[in-house]
Amino acid sequence: MNLNITHLQNEYRSGRLFPSQLITELDSMMDVSDTHHIWIHRLNLAEMLSYAQKLEGKNPEDYPLYGIPFAIKDNIDLANIPTTAACAQFAYTPSISAFVIQKLINAGAIPIGKTNLDQFATGLVGARSPYGACKNSINPTYISGGSSAGSAVSVALNYVSFSLGTDTAGSGRVPAAFNHLIGMKPSLGLLSTSGVVPACKTLDCVSIFAKTITEAEIVFSIAQGHDEADDYSRPETTQGAMFDHQFKFGVPKKEQLAFFGNTETPLLFELAIKQLVKAGGMAVEIDFSPFLATARLLYEGPWVAERYAAIEAFIEQNSDALYPVTRKIINNAKNFSATDTFNAFYRLKALQRTTTKIWQKIDVLLTPTAGTIYTIDEVEADPIQTNSNLGYYTNFINLLDMAAIAIPAGFQQNGLPFGVTLSAPAMHDLALLNLAKRFNQN
Amino acid sequence: MNLNITHLQNEYRSGRLFPSQLITELDSMMDVSDTHHIWIHRLNLAEMLSYAQKLEGKNPEDYPLYGIPFAIKDNIDLANIPTTAACAQFAYTPSISAFVIQKLINAGAIPIGKTNLDQFATGLVGARSPYGACKNSINPTYISGGSSAGSAVSVALNYVSFSLGTDTAGSGRVPAAFNHLIGMKPSLGLLSTSGVVPACKTLDCVSIFAKTITEAEIVFSIAQGHDEADDYSRPETTQGAMFDHQFKFGVPKKEQLAFFGNTETPLLFELAIKQLVKAGGMAVEIDFSPFLATARLLYEGPWVAERYAAIEAFIEQNSDALYPVTRKIINNAKNFSATDTFNAFYRLKALQRTTTKIWQKIDVLLTPTAGTIYTIDEVEADPIQTNSNLGYYTNFINLLDMAAIAIPAGFQQNGLPFGVTLSAPAMHDLALLNLAKRFNQN
Repeated sequence: MNLNITHLQNEYRSGRLFPSQLITELDSMMDVSDTHHIWIHRLNLAEMLSYAQKLEGKNPEDYPLYGIPFAIKDNIDLANIPTTAACAQFAYTPSISAFVIQKLINAGAIPIGKTNLDQFATGLVGARSPYGACKNSINPTYISGGSSAGSAVSVALNYVSFSLGTDTAGSGRVPAAFNHLIGMKPSLGLLSTSGVVPACKTLDCVSIFAKTITEAEIVFSIAQGHDEADDYSRPETTQGAMFDHQFKFGVPKKEQLAFFGNTETPLLFELAIKQLVKAGGMAVEIDFSPFLATARLLYEGPWVAERYAAIEAFIEQNSDALYPVTRKIINNAKNFSATDTFNAFYRLKALQRTTTKIWQKIDVLLTPTAGTIYTIDEVEADPIQTNSNLGYYTNFINLLDMAAIAIPAGFQQNGLPFGVTLSAPAMHDLALLNLAKRFNQN
Repeated sequence: MNLNITHLQNEYRSGRLFPSQLITELDSMMDVSDTHHIWIHRLNLAEMLSYAQKLEGKNPEDYPLYGIPFAIKDNIDLANIPTTAACAQFAYTPSISAFVIQKLINAGAIPIGKTNLDQFATGLVGARSPYGACKNSINPTYISGGSSAGSAVSVALNYVSFSLGTDTAGSGRVPAAFNHLIGMKPSLGLLSTSGVVPACKTLDCVSIFAKTITEAEIVFSIAQGHDEADDYSRPETTQGAMFDHQFKFGVPKKEQLAFFGNTETPLLFELAIKQLVKAGGMAVEIDFSPFLATARLLYEGPWVAERYAAIEAFIEQNSDALYPVTRKIINNAKNFSATDTFNAFYRLKALQRTTTKIWQKIDVLLTPTAGTIYTIDEVEADPIQTNSNLGYYTNFINLLDMAAIAIPAGFQQNGLPFGVTLSAPAMHDLALLNLAKRFNQN
């Protein structure tokens, strides 16, 4: 079934398709056993139809997402369906949907289910869930990437047209790379986080998975908007200009690239550089070290205390309810004092200043999204180091208030995909989407 | 001796006065016994003359502060003179002057000495110093206010034309009020803090004491400027527009005003409101509670950990070297975790949002600078509560990224001065200076 948004819009507008019909077909096609561990709660047919039926009799032209099926990471509220954050004991059933979910539903989109994730959105692997390790859509012995694991795989396996994830340290980008998808990580505060279980409240973003850039762009245009109830919602949403026909893109120095033993991905990254040159870019070698230092600051620093703060009351009563590796990580918060926190802020401020100077030399940054991919077994054997490796190119983005888009960039011999990320300072979201299209055309 | 900057400029430009002559006269007039405890290190005649002699033979027109004597709070570096922060064991002798000091010296200003302060700029009283409680310039049984105690008193007693203080929680405003001076607290980051001993690095400002607004304005225009070496230096210095001929000023609701038992200051504040109305303002009663909640957040919250972070290596080795009440306060840092810190940031972000809405209704805020004043004995009897009372109207300013100017507003029957503060969101520094002039003219 073709779930491309533009295709479905045409089908609905021509009268060849009705939302309840699409939903019924989708339901019958779903893998009931959910062997990939995509869903924590899939809506039953009646629940889905209740959304579809509200659209019947209405003009598809009036609803930009009329009858478009989508999936929701299970740390984002959907009214009357439990939100678990992949922790059954933590679950609550919200009476209203998250701000962004309501915007999508108002535009006609139909929620299909709540997806599996690294518990409390803590991880980049997709295997840290009591609901089972989410499996890669292309080769199920491999990880899906996380934390927005099920959201990515549900799009890749064509159960939905698009999905929402969240992205604090890379959770909206790494699973995109591992499932050959677009993963759009908007600037901080453009998509409201009201109704989202916080991971690091100062850094959390809602992210978008789609098969094409045009679809990501459509969803972004509808989901974004100021939310009075979200203190971190960005009041001004004026977007920067598009990148010029000729532009400069930064690439880390060779010795600062890391592929963690993978011998194919370095070549795929070389090809991506050439592809971006064809799109009008001039590659500029940059010193990647301040970005890497920022990434380490997130990974090793006091921001883990935000994860603790987010579930403080719960974790103090129910520490045993947490997935073991997640509990271990979040309890690290206790090792950081207020003094450590301010010292980390000073360090971050200095690193922000340093990267500002790099941005005077380049328009956009091109990196791998992840240097390599692991099997589920490899991650289970060494859950901390593998996860850390996957964040090498992603952890710094939100601390530096950047926007990013992960895009597919070829395949390894074994059929697993490789992806790259285009990133730029905040409010270059539309410029990045546009540049990603130019990349794809070359 | 008339040390007004414009007067001295005229004297120098007409050739009636030479810098070394002024310095020599000043030196002979100084109270050698320093009964007010103004100075931690006063420059000797030879040291001062070395600055004066560099100006001789140069054209006074080329140096906007040619031969203008000034004092420096002893947490700001002056080359080759010890910086103590009022802790002898902490002292170091910098080889270069702080960025702002060098700017002033380059403009022709002559440093006279390093002034007494509440140790490590922690306090609003001026009595927390092993160098002796700094005495009020008008009635020496009263406190000078702090922490920039000696800087204020040195101007008030006419030893210098102006002085620099620092202001994190009110240290540049409270002493202005208590010594009948202008105390300008610029927007965060406009005056570099390179070469300043940090108190709370994310909140510290260098402040200016002067007898007149025009003099504060002259010093501000010279001292400000971007400093590459200071991560918190504000890159953009575009100032907001002046306030209109007619403007709205916020005044806290009656029941939210606090005068701590003083029966005269409420009447003086009423007069100040009338005076600002005469200057074109319309008084608007506002809900002061989000400002008060922000003030409490600074006073009771994790920001004290910045004070610990600033002297961490020192305090861990030399805890006994600290003034007892200062040690007690700074050691409170240990009671705050990283989680507490992030929770306080979330609370602050929400309060910032709330106050943003208040700023849609008013252009400027008028409050007392301090509700009352205490004798040195009263402060020594209850050092914590008296200090807390003095921060009631000042603690919130930097957390909310505001600019403020403290201005004299009459006297109590006992001859002690009262002061009010005009404040507004960041980058309204010039507008506040201009409005302060209008206030004075009415």
